[in-house]
Parts: sequence; structure tokens; C-alpha cells
Amino acid sequence: MDQTQGYTDFPHQSVTFPEGVALDCGRMLPSVTVAYRTYGTLNEAKSNAILICHALTGDQYVAEQNPETGRPGWWQRVVGPGAPVDTEKYFVICANVLGGCMGSTGPHSPHAEKPGALWGTDFPAITIHDMVRVQKRLIEHLGIQKLFAVVGGSMGGMQALSWAVQFPDMLFAAVPIAAAYYHSAQNIAFHEIGRQAIYADPGFKGGNYWAEGGRPERGLAVARMTAHITYVSEEALNRKFGRKLQNAEGISAFGEQFAVESYLQYQGSSFVQRFDANSYLAITRAMDLFDLSSEQAGELAGAFKGVKARFLLVSFSSDWLFPTAQSRAIARALNHVAANVSFVEVQSDKGHDAFLLDEPDFHATLRGFLNGCAEHAGLS
Amino acid sequence: MDQTQGYTDFPHQSVTFPEGVALDCGRMLPSVTVAYRTYGTLNEAKSNAILICHALTGDQYVAEQNPETGRPGWWQRVVGPGAPVDTEKYFVICANVLGGCMGSTGPHSPHAEKPGALWGTDFPAITIHDMVRVQKRLIEHLGIQKLFAVVGGSMGGMQALSWAVQFPDMLFAAVPIAAAYYHSAQNIAFHEIGRQAIYADPGFKGGNYWAEGGRPERGLAVARMTAHITYVSEEALNRKFGRKLQNAEGISAFGEQFAVESYLQYQGSSFVQRFDANSYLAITRAMDLFDLSSEQAGELAGAFKGVKARFLLVSFSSDWLFPTAQSRAIARALNHVAANVSFVEVQSDKGHDAFLLDEPDFHATLRGFLNGCAEHAGLS
Repeated sequence: MDQTQGYTDFPHQSVTFPEGVALDCGRMLPSVTVAYRTYGTLNEAKSNAILICHALTGDQYVAEQNPETGRPGWWQRVVGPGAPVDTEKYFVICANVLGGCMGSTGPHSPHAEKPGALWGTDFPAITIHDMVRVQKRLIEHLGIQKLFAVVGGSMGGMQALSWAVQFPDMLFAAVPIAAAYYHSAQNIAFHEIGRQAIYADPGFKGGNYWAEGGRPERGLAVARMTAHITYVSEEALNRKFGRKLQNAEGISAFGEQFAVESYLQYQGSSFVQRFDANSYLAITRAMDLFDLSSEQAGELAGAFKGVKARFLLVSFSSDWLFPTAQSRAIARALNHVAANVSFVEVQSDKGHDAFLLDEPDFHATLRGFLNGCAEHAGLS
Repeated sequence: MDQTQGYTDFPHQSVTFPEGVALDCGRMLPSVTVAYRTYGTLNEAKSNAILICHALTGDQYVAEQNPETGRPGWWQRVVGPGAPVDTEKYFVICANVLGGCMGSTGPHSPHAEKPGALWGTDFPAITIHDMVRVQKRLIEHLGIQKLFAVVGGSMGGMQALSWAVQFPDMLFAAVPIAAAYYHSAQNIAFHEIGRQAIYADPGFKGGNYWAEGGRPERGLAVARMTAHITYVSEEALNRKFGRKLQNAEGISAFGEQFAVESYLQYQGSSFVQRFDANSYLAITRAMDLFDLSSEQAGELAGAFKGVKARFLLVSFSSDWLFPTAQSRAIARALNHVAANVSFVEVQSDKGHDAFLLDEPDFHATLRGFLNGCAEHAGLS
């Protein structure tokens, strides 16, 4: 297994498929590297594999510290020994998405047509389906014919849906969490704010900042701040900050005043240390482009014809980015094609981010569903 | 009456109070100019005056074309001959707020302590109460002892509340529309995104862009785009744009793709032609600082003790910036002090912006309330 280099040239565990991949945009990526991590042991029948799909700014280090950033695994509450996705029972795989910046092929990878250069904004437009096609290569490479489950939150949930639709024979169960079957106009608009902030940063240099030095740090920070507001609920912001003052010295028109401002600024500035602006542009666009219903003339149920997976859909009551109505629409369409589907709305005031946080009801639901499926699949 | 100059040195009708005004922040503004417009005729008893308070980016040209920007009056649907605020019956006054950029004293005004310089970010922090104190000077200057009504939407509604609390004897009726008694953590967060985008623009130059040339146009555009999302409902965005493509040629990672993106970009770029970044910073901060309950140890009802005005509170069902719950909380607190209050939630899918748009139910409600008040006040 070769090793590849991430955003900061850190060597990540990976595999390269030199035959490349045909993309939805019509272009061909001539060589594709997938950085990934596995946890637990693949059983002899190779029937206990769970693929975890990460969200917009996640990575493959789902259950362990990311050695490049030093951050703890982003879903250690959910994946690990004894956790709902129990690594003592399941073989867990998590890969950095196509377009990402943690070792998988993305805008930071060598340009296929310009020797010595990086892709930058020449990187082809990618889709959620493209990401999943690349994951399929990895699964086959690992010798697995059928996944026990594909589990993911937010953009990871879009990938779980894409798996169920594109490769119905390759998964037993699908768990899209806090997800949607299309990106709404409002959500596209929020992404666009972030993109415009990045473009507006003179450090962006038309996407060629690696070659020219510097990074669009302030623009990317504003993008992250904007996204962050959509990840948390108004209740959570009120509970955590309300109108608490940061600057208690007096009132100030042009400086920091409220605690919620410092918090957002921290979210923005810490993000730029670990994420690449071109990847942010490419991946937000992939989310914008996701619309399962469009493939069947607006008929979501049509897209689900032929799915075979058992579904668990989870939404969170205070999530306003991917509200419960979205998951409900998916459940209805799945019912329409007589798919096997459970749908749970978890009561939480933590907003979209709830899927990453301590939500015992969600964790119990996920554990129960996987246990039930394991029984049906003859895994227990 | 002297004339003053706005953001682009256009001469606006105004009055200057050389004695200045003491601000909530503890500083003194040594001279204050108020740019304003009036419509209709003040009756002999001077009892038919209605003050209209504008929102964050509004101006004094409520019922006529703004001669500087060429834009039509921002509330011509509501104010004019035969309109709900009928200029054949009422004498209507509208002033550019303190901190604004359409002729009233603001960051673009001459610096009081540095001859030849403009205030820029040295401009003192201002509050909604400060804006209202300056409006009171104008009202007295016009020879009016008691306004028949103070009417405003959004930040204009905050001013109407401030009038009722600060000068209870100076108004017969108050109409806060799509307003709130405090700015929430989420709303402060959205403002902060805009401010950070402005600060991040190298054209901002620490707020000294007038002297050094150029303007933080891209940052201000991102600020406006962010704010604009909060002004419209998800339903309205879906209805207007949904996932309509702007670029139908194919999919693109780094260019324009969806119609909603072009729309937002247009909102941003047209805004920078008519608004000043330092004013945007000063006025958003004034909104953030607004919290009527804080003045009475968290007791909103306490703040309303002593109010005498009759109130009409209007909210719009799809407004998520100042949701109905906010107006309801105001109504409850007013009831608590036995104030005379009507509260109407208008069903609309147009979001916060509904107060500016064609909403016949809202217009009929406002007309009816003013007519009833006119009868009580012996105006009819």
C-alpha cells in the first residue's frame, strides 16, 4: 500500500487506482488516490464491514486522533470498541472523500495535464455520486463484495443514499443521518456566501495560492463562520452565549463585543489550519449538485426503485440545515417503493451538529438498528 | 435649513444641532446633523405627525425616489396619498438614522477632533436609543410636541419601541413591525459574519478607505449577501429559484452554477453602490446592542412601565430573523403593564422582507389601526 500526502504533505495511509475514474461532469480523472483508515477485523465471510462516510469538513480519522491535525477522531462517540458502531464486532472503513484534503485526490493533487503543477481550480467538478464510485473501488480493493452498512451524517448521509441507489447489491443497510435528498436554495445560498468570501480574499489568487504563497485564510474563515451558524440551533447559541459580553469594558462599534462573536471567530481561525480552500469550494459544490429526484424527472420514489438496503433515517428536531421534513420526504419515497425503512426524529436542541455530539437517544437508535440488521444478516 | 452631504457628497435636506448629543457609550457627539424628508401637511394643532423609522439599510426617502441613488421610495406601498399611512391625512416625517450614510451624522462625517479628517472607525458606538434621541431633536425642531404615531419595520420597529419607552408622552401610537426587543445570539452571529467579511477585505484599510482610496466592496457585498439570506424565507427562495441552473452548460466546481447564486451576487454588488461599509458596521452594532429587557434586570415588562402609547405589533409567519415569538413576547410584556396593544401575525411566505413587500393583509391592518387611533385622538 503506498502512502500519499495531504494538505500539509503529511503521509496518510492510502491506495491509488491508476486506471482513474469517469466523473459525472464528463471528464476523466486519470488516477485516483483514496486515503482511508480501518478499525476492527474483517471476518472470514467478509460480511461485517461498515463504511462510514464523512461530512463536508470531516476526514478518514473517524475513531482515532488525526495524526496530521492532532484532533481527536470526529466520531469517537459513535465508532469504537463497544460503541454503537462497535469495532469489536464490525470492520469499519472510513475514507477521505474525493476532492478532500486529507490524502485523497483533490485540488491539492498533482495536475494530470500540467507536470509539476497542482490541480487548483482546474480540478474537475465532482459529485456525491463520484465520491461514492471512488469509495466502491476502495471496497473492492479490500476484497469486500457487500458492505454490511453504509453510515453517514450530513454530506455523509447523502453518500449513504447514493450508495443505496447506485449500488443496491453492495450494501445490506443504509443509515443517512441529518441528511437530505437535495440541497435547497437556501443551503446553496449559504455555501455561496462562503465561496464568495474565499474568492474575495486576495490571498486566493484565482485558486493558485499554493504556487504563489499564502492562503485565503480570512475568506475561508468567514466561510467556516457562516457554515457554523447553520450547524447550530438558535436555542444552542442562546444557551451557550445569549447576549453575554466579551468586551465588558464598554460598548464598541468597531471591535469585539459579544461572546458569540469570539466563538465564531475561533471557529473560523482554527478551521483554516486544517482545511484547504480549494477543497472547500469543490466539496460544497458537490453538495449543491446533489438532487436524487432530478435524476427521475423530479420523482424521488423513481430514484429509489431497485434499492435493496434496509434504511434507518435519523433527523434532529432543531436541525434547520437539513430539517426533519427532508428525512420524512425520503422515508415517504422509500415507503412508496416498499423499501424497509425506519425513521426516527431525535428530540435535540443542538441543531445539525447534534449528529456529532453526545445524543444518547440517537446512539441507542443506531445501535439497536445495527443489532437488528446483524441478526437478520446472520452476523450475530 | 442647511444642507448636508451624504456618502457621495449629494446634498440632502437636513438640520444641524450644534449643541450635539450625549451618547449611551458615554461620549459626546459635539454636533449632529439629521437628514430628513417630510410628506403631507402638518395640521394647525400639530397633532397629525407620523414618524417613520427606517431599517438597517434604509433612508429618509420613504415615499419618493432617492435623488442620490435613483431608487424608488422604499415604502411607497405603505406611505403616500391614499396609502395606509395616508399623506393626505398625516404629516409624515422620515429621517436618516444617526450613523447612516444618507446625510445624517455618521462615520462619513467630519471628525470632531481631527480637523480635515472623517470619523471612520473613530465614530463613537451608537445605540437605538441614541438614534431616537436625535430624532426627538428633529421632532422638536419641527415644532411638534407629540407625534401621532411612530411606525417602523425591523430596526425601525426597535426605534418605535425605544420611542415608546424613552419618551412616553411624545407619541399617541407605536407600530413596531417585524421587530424584536433584543437582538438574539444568532442574529448577532449573522451580523458578525458581515463585519468579518468587511474587515477581511484589504480595501477596508482599517476603516480609513476614504482617505486612502478604494472601498471594501467585496467584503461589504458578502455582508449584504449574508444579511439577504436572513431577510427571505426558505419558501421564497425555493419558489423564486429552487435549484434552477444559471450555468446550464454543464457542472462547474469553481464558477457560477445556480440561479440563486447570481441573485445573491447581484444583491451584494448593487448594495455597495449605495451604502457605506463604516455605516454598516456602526448600525449593525447598534442593533446588536439593543435589549430592552437588560435595562430592567431582564424584566421586559419593567422596561414598559410607564408607556402610554397604543401599540400595534405586526409579525410575519415566515420571518425567521425576527420571528413571531419575539413580537408575542413584547405583546405579553405590554399586557403585563396593562398597555393598549393589538398583535397581528400576518400569514406570509416572504420572510422578514414581507414588511417591505406587497402584503395586503398587513397594509389593511396598519390602515385600520391608524384609522381607529385617529378617531380616538380626535383627528378624523
